Amino acid sequence: MIRVLLVHDACLVRSVLAEWLRREPDLGVFDASWHSAPGSLRSVRPDVCAADLDCSDAYGIPPLGELCAREAGRTPPRLLVLAGANRPGLLKRAAEAGALGYVDKESSPEKLVRGIRRVAQGERFIDDSLGFGFLKAAEMPLTRRELSVLSLAAEGASVAEIAGSLHLSHGTVRNYMAAITRKTGARNRIDAIRISQGEGWL
Amino acid sequence: MIRVLLVHDACLVRSVLAEWLRREPDLGVFDASWHSAPGSLRSVRPDVCAADLDCSDAYGIPPLGELCAREAGRTPPRLLVLAGANRPGLLKRAAEAGALGYVDKESSPEKLVRGIRRVAQGERFIDDSLGFGFLKAAEMPLTRRELSVLSLAAEGASVAEIAGSLHLSHGTVRNYMAAITRKTGARNRIDAIRISQGEGWL
Repeated sequence: MIRVLLVHDACLVRSVLAEWLRREPDLGVFDASWHSAPGSLRSVRPDVCAADLDCSDAYGIPPLGELCAREAGRTPPRLLVLAGANRPGLLKRAAEAGALGYVDKESSPEKLVRGIRRVAQGERFIDDSLGFGFLKAAEMPLTRRELSVLSLAAEGASVAEIAGSLHLSHGTVRNYMAAITRKTGARNRIDAIRISQGEGWL
Repeated sequence: MIRVLLVHDACLVRSVLAEWLRREPDLGVFDASWHSAPGSLRSVRPDVCAADLDCSDAYGIPPLGELCAREAGRTPPRLLVLAGANRPGLLKRAAEAGALGYVDKESSPEKLVRGIRRVAQGERFIDDSLGFGFLKAAEMPLTRRELSVLSLAAEGASVAEIAGSLHLSHGTVRNYMAAITRKTGARNRIDAIRISQGEGWL
């Protein structure tokens, strides 16, 4: 029996999807929102955590780290994500969090079942149609530091606030913003944020 | 028999949800993405169109108008939306598009079935838990003109470009942006965009 924790933020969708998975005799299915996922992980101790990369609390950035945090005396579950090829930033984050499985939301639900079984055996599962998304993820133009600057700007921080929290001069922050705008092919700062959020980098 | 067109952007979720609805003997269920919905409406001619307000093409603004467009010789379907109380802007847009039904994504799937049956009879159906969202929608602080200015800014347009496309002076656009920032309680322009997108106004 494979114990699966299904993480999705919309309760209505989550219950229907969990019920659908429960028809498979080898799956024991539990479900949680992103908010309640850390607690459910501790109580359910799933073999596989299947998480939708959309998160209603944050546009773009689900708290993947919390799903994979190692705790004493506990084997972390194997992570499978439901993703889209159009948001390479989220694919990259999932890979960095150690996800083994990647199922395209444009796939059939049968593929989710296949992915869960493969990941439960410790094997990687990558949906063919996500290939282009992974390619784009590899071509991410911004450095880690540039992403930090842009994330703060996207939260509404001023140049002075960004400079203060990253211990940089105002001029350096402006240079970073100019480089970010150029590298993302944006028209200005707001456009750079829009483009980066759309692709899932922020 | 109630003919239902289910509109949701993620194929995997959509197929499972459609299959779940098909267990009801009085529902004839078809499904489509937002992109293919206008074509499906013409071929399926549903009694009820049940649409998820999240749309992968645009953060926040599903093309609701296309679901409700009147065409010669065709009765438009009754519209039911799957929504969240945390994005009042989307609730308001759905109301403006003439939606009869509002089901909370945090509800149980049984409520979706109840909503579809009520809306098919031409009756309004509003999930109790969406009440606070409707209250917030009524308190929307920005005028239509301010929203137009902010939408263009969010797409990356400069003050000059906004002025040009709305036939305003640069100073007037700056005044609008200052008023928007104040009214949304934002720290600056980028923060105003972030807040407004989060609530579904943009």
